[in-house]
Amino acid sequence: MEEIREFLGQVDLFERLPESQIDAMSAIAKPLHYEKGEPIFFEGDRCLGFFLVQSGRVKVYKTSPDGKEQILHWFERGDRFAEVPAFDGGCYPASAAALEQTSVILIPSQALLALVEQYPSLAFNLLAGLSRNLRRFANLIDTLSLKDVSSRLAGYLLELSDRQNANPVELDLAKGQLAAFLGTIPETLSRTFAKLTQAQLIEVEARQVKIRDCEGLRRLAAGDSGVSGISG
Amino acid sequence: MEEIREFLGQVDLFERLPESQIDAMSAIAKPLHYEKGEPIFFEGDRCLGFFLVQSGRVKVYKTSPDGKEQILHWFERGDRFAEVPAFDGGCYPASAAALEQTSVILIPSQALLALVEQYPSLAFNLLAGLSRNLRRFANLIDTLSLKDVSSRLAGYLLELSDRQNANPVELDLAKGQLAAFLGTIPETLSRTFAKLTQAQLIEVEARQVKIRDCEGLRRLAAGDSGVSGISG
Repeated sequence: MEEIREFLGQVDLFERLPESQIDAMSAIAKPLHYEKGEPIFFEGDRCLGFFLVQSGRVKVYKTSPDGKEQILHWFERGDRFAEVPAFDGGCYPASAAALEQTSVILIPSQALLALVEQYPSLAFNLLAGLSRNLRRFANLIDTLSLKDVSSRLAGYLLELSDRQNANPVELDLAKGQLAAFLGTIPETLSRTFAKLTQAQLIEVEARQVKIRDCEGLRRLAAGDSGVSGISG
Repeated sequence: MEEIREFLGQVDLFERLPESQIDAMSAIAKPLHYEKGEPIFFEGDRCLGFFLVQSGRVKVYKTSPDGKEQILHWFERGDRFAEVPAFDGGCYPASAAALEQTSVILIPSQALLALVEQYPSLAFNLLAGLSRNLRRFANLIDTLSLKDVSSRLAGYLLELSDRQNANPVELDLAKGQLAAFLGTIPETLSRTFAKLTQAQLIEVEARQVKIRDCEGLRRLAAGDSGVSGISG
């Protein structure tokens, strides 16, 4: 019991919870043990809650109609899985099994909902934890994609100007679609538009983009990151 | 009023909320309007809640001691910001101002907490929304970093084997630290270890990694993605 409490206190989602709420989480937490190869749940089963890996490794996989297995994710100590169906009350979207001797902690949705009724601030603490995760992930996506996105956006705007035979051009995709098309997230796309504007390559007004420096955009699209103002 | 309700129903965080909960959110939502350049909040102010951009653009920035401004993020229609301090009850970690005429919706933390007391399932719906966001971001990070991470992990293992003059080598960083060092997230790192294992380049046992195919690892580290089994 003490062991579970100590482990939960180290999980990043819970690390800022007050002591009383970690105690309450430990009281509803269910430790489960699996042998190598043992199933944890199957796709389509009603979701009982989300899981934290305490030791060992878990694969999450789908099985195709011809019986072929496709592994989607691997999880190990400290990772959590199945939180989307745990919170939205659906079924497991994939199956999970232990890859070796594995201990997991199940946080049952029903019991967690009862805890949230008792301590509404627990919900806020969990929302804060997920928001911090999201912010960190968004920053990493920014770092991983910013340089490429500048060059791809430059190429896209030139191609659009060619296609529409116009300047300013009218964006033909919603922001979320354009971000996905360029391999990034809307936030990084906004920052990229801002960088191109600051470098005086373009001017943005709602959905209209005016190309101010066609040569600069061409160099950027060709991968020249030395275009003034576009770096880092 | 009807306009706010319609807008909130389209925000990705709320799109799966039941009608009654969107109505309740609309009732606490505060529409705010700013002229170009007008401040929305300052770093260190007590956080009132989180914001959704309805139209216009917002910059989030820090000011250095010598008065220089560094823009951290840009937000526009449909984006949300300040959710970390809104949920954890802290102060704004940066300042925000309107870049043009801008309308935002403030979701006040105090009123939202009262709503969660009334409808605990609202908290679960918000947790599900953030979890879906996180899953999408994790998949994108996987796509953006997987190829590079394979090659960087191969290089790291070879270097570690050199340094420890041993095989198997003992990992000298915690998983989260190693993931950050290789420019990715723990989940993608786990998948990469799994891929290298499946390709029979290494064997993993807890914190020990045995190098089975030194030549294959070298080719992978040098950027040869044609090493059997390592692609996609």
